Amino acid sequence: MKKKPVTGMRDILPEEMEIRNYAMNLIRETYGSFGFLPLETPCVEHIENLSSNQGGENEKLIFKILKRGEKLKIDQAQGEMDLVDGGLRYDLTLPLSRYYANNASKLPAPFKALQMGNVWRADRPQRGRFRQFMQCDIDTLGDPSCLAEIELIAATTTLLGRLGFKGFTIRINDRKILKAMARYSGFPEESFDTVFIILDKMDKLGAQGVAQELRNEGFPAEAADKYMELFSQVDSSVEGVRRCGEILGDAADAESIDNLIRIMESVEAVRTADFSVKFDPALVRGMSYYTGPIFEVSIDGFGGSVGGGGRYDEMIGKFTGQDTCACGFSIGFERIVMLLMEQKFQVPAARKKIACLIEKNMPSERMQEILKQAQALREAGNQVNTAVMKKNKKFQKEQLKEEGYEEILEFYREGL
Amino acid sequence: MKKKPVTGMRDILPEEMEIRNYAMNLIRETYGSFGFLPLETPCVEHIENLSSNQGGENEKLIFKILKRGEKLKIDQAQGEMDLVDGGLRYDLTLPLSRYYANNASKLPAPFKALQMGNVWRADRPQRGRFRQFMQCDIDTLGDPSCLAEIELIAATTTLLGRLGFKGFTIRINDRKILKAMARYSGFPEESFDTVFIILDKMDKLGAQGVAQELRNEGFPAEAADKYMELFSQVDSSVEGVRRCGEILGDAADAESIDNLIRIMESVEAVRTADFSVKFDPALVRGMSYYTGPIFEVSIDGFGGSVGGGGRYDEMIGKFTGQDTCACGFSIGFERIVMLLMEQKFQVPAARKKIACLIEKNMPSERMQEILKQAQALREAGNQVNTAVMKKNKKFQKEQLKEEGYEEILEFYREGL
Repeated sequence: MKKKPVTGMRDILPEEMEIRNYAMNLIRETYGSFGFLPLETPCVEHIENLSSNQGGENEKLIFKILKRGEKLKIDQAQGEMDLVDGGLRYDLTLPLSRYYANNASKLPAPFKALQMGNVWRADRPQRGRFRQFMQCDIDTLGDPSCLAEIELIAATTTLLGRLGFKGFTIRINDRKILKAMARYSGFPEESFDTVFIILDKMDKLGAQGVAQELRNEGFPAEAADKYMELFSQVDSSVEGVRRCGEILGDAADAESIDNLIRIMESVEAVRTADFSVKFDPALVRGMSYYTGPIFEVSIDGFGGSVGGGGRYDEMIGKFTGQDTCACGFSIGFERIVMLLMEQKFQVPAARKKIACLIEKNMPSERMQEILKQAQALREAGNQVNTAVMKKNKKFQKEQLKEEGYEEILEFYREGL
Repeated sequence: MKKKPVTGMRDILPEEMEIRNYAMNLIRETYGSFGFLPLETPCVEHIENLSSNQGGENEKLIFKILKRGEKLKIDQAQGEMDLVDGGLRYDLTLPLSRYYANNASKLPAPFKALQMGNVWRADRPQRGRFRQFMQCDIDTLGDPSCLAEIELIAATTTLLGRLGFKGFTIRINDRKILKAMARYSGFPEESFDTVFIILDKMDKLGAQGVAQELRNEGFPAEAADKYMELFSQVDSSVEGVRRCGEILGDAADAESIDNLIRIMESVEAVRTADFSVKFDPALVRGMSYYTGPIFEVSIDGFGGSVGGGGRYDEMIGKFTGQDTCACGFSIGFERIVMLLMEQKFQVPAARKKIACLIEKNMPSERMQEILKQAQALREAGNQVNTAVMKKNKKFQKEQLKEEGYEEILEFYREGL
């Protein structure tokens, strides 16, 4: 039999589990204090839903589930889709849309949702990325106002602060401003996706590099230059957003500009953690379903983001046939746990750890006395482990100390 | 797109999630106070491991996962097993054996494990049974003494008491006594499995019915009569176990009898909840891997058990090639949640729930003041939800009250 977990997945040791459980409780508590309500969907989804083009690249990475019983007809199968009827979910957003379509009448409006659950992607195995990982999403469904964005960001920054993170950055942009800037610079509407894929490399290539790649792609040099000139004129402050709106003039939608300023100012005003909010006109975010404000969190000294999200007003309607505005924020739970592990984070001990070592062949009545004593110590708020005393008691005690047992009681057959 | 979850699985509403989260935290806390350590294995296991005959009937119910990429050769497939390389786990015991084989060197000895996680079985859909459900197992690996059984039972009864259950019963037996009784009555060793399947119906058929069915199966009437006579001579007390040992004489193993008495006496002695421990010589428990004491919890007025377990000293060795004694207790998490829901259980409110209704088009500065106030209320320990005031404010307030908001603050554009 195989001892290793399946390729790309992993066993989690108790030490990490303590940190995960601590983080999960803090997430539930913090988001709960903002009124987000927990929900759960099955890990298995209809293969039709998973393959409906809402999932972008993730749809190529689905773990598919074989049909069962008479429905499985191997000899008649032309391709994969004839063999399967379900798949493991690759994110929590698509299942949330289905859940909302199925249960909206039983849910508050707007609905503030909290999901924590595993998702699966058959990605090429690589260091630090796994094929099963926990996602943690909050979403507000049915609130068209920017109060949704403000609360999503306020809740998440409060959470990160409570997890001990400092000096992190919320970068923010709006899909409508992103498009207005490309339009203003003279790129044709149908090429926006290509332009944004290149723009997304701003961090790596810098403005000159991006301009070069835009020209290489065949876009006019004037458009590339005007585009980069625009980026150079706006800074990352609220003032930068305002300036951006002035330059764009009619090319931009004034409401998006006001909205973004309002979000930035409000998030600053209610801050409880040590972070900064920055306008990043080059922020793209991959998924094509975003329709309004988009945002991302990054932590200094850690490459890549630890969370992100945005408004996606059109996705749920595609599912339900009824327009429902929506806005979500997903935090990278696995990255956060990894960072905490790297920092040698110690979960605050709720209880004193006591071990009771009991000599072998303890007479029954005496044993009962010892167990009663252990139980009384538990009721007094301690964590109490009982164990049979080993021959090498010294080694056993050392081990227990390493496991964090602060007090070790020894019980012998005769007397204490 | 399909709005309903896949067949046999279900969406969980916030109301139930609150109860589930409460129960999960209480489980983690209670078992944690006994020194059980949390661990997690992937939901996907090697198909070879899942199909290794350790899982009994469950192996027929596996959700199998299609191979991916070049490994999938549909046109060459002779059967299911050529198409799949993984499956969703159907229990937590088999993955625990693999986990222990993979990680024993990094774990304490003995290892006291706590697992909470979903398992999947493609059972025929029926009321109250689902194809994805949560299991919650504690296992002690590497402790041959009955201290393992005592602590498993003490921890679980403490938990059930803390969940508010009263008057429940722990029924207990030992596989070795079960076999000794059949041997003593004159059944041939190779027919024990058949005898026990019939004996397992004692609850439904009574002693006369069981005797009849044994005769129908072709067993000698004398054996059936001697067997039932034996059951009539032992009661469910510790005295019953002792009496059983006396009658069986050399047919039984004296250590099993002493062990069982010791477990029953110790569990009684350390009891913290309102329950009784009963010797049940007709307790069989389905899985064939049990080797020693077995036990089951039942709650009055609720058909069927809400948990059970036992010693399985030979299973892990089959996996690892190295004998490791083991003993586990699994509680029926879904049944417990169902019982709590039926009792209209209210999760103790940790926080006061306050809603802030904010009039539409609130000026930015005033909005920031309101959000700051909401944040201050959260920091003071309240749960605070903000929402844009709807046209039908009266209805909105009624809804919020139904959701448990005790206080509703209203904010208007002009003044408070």
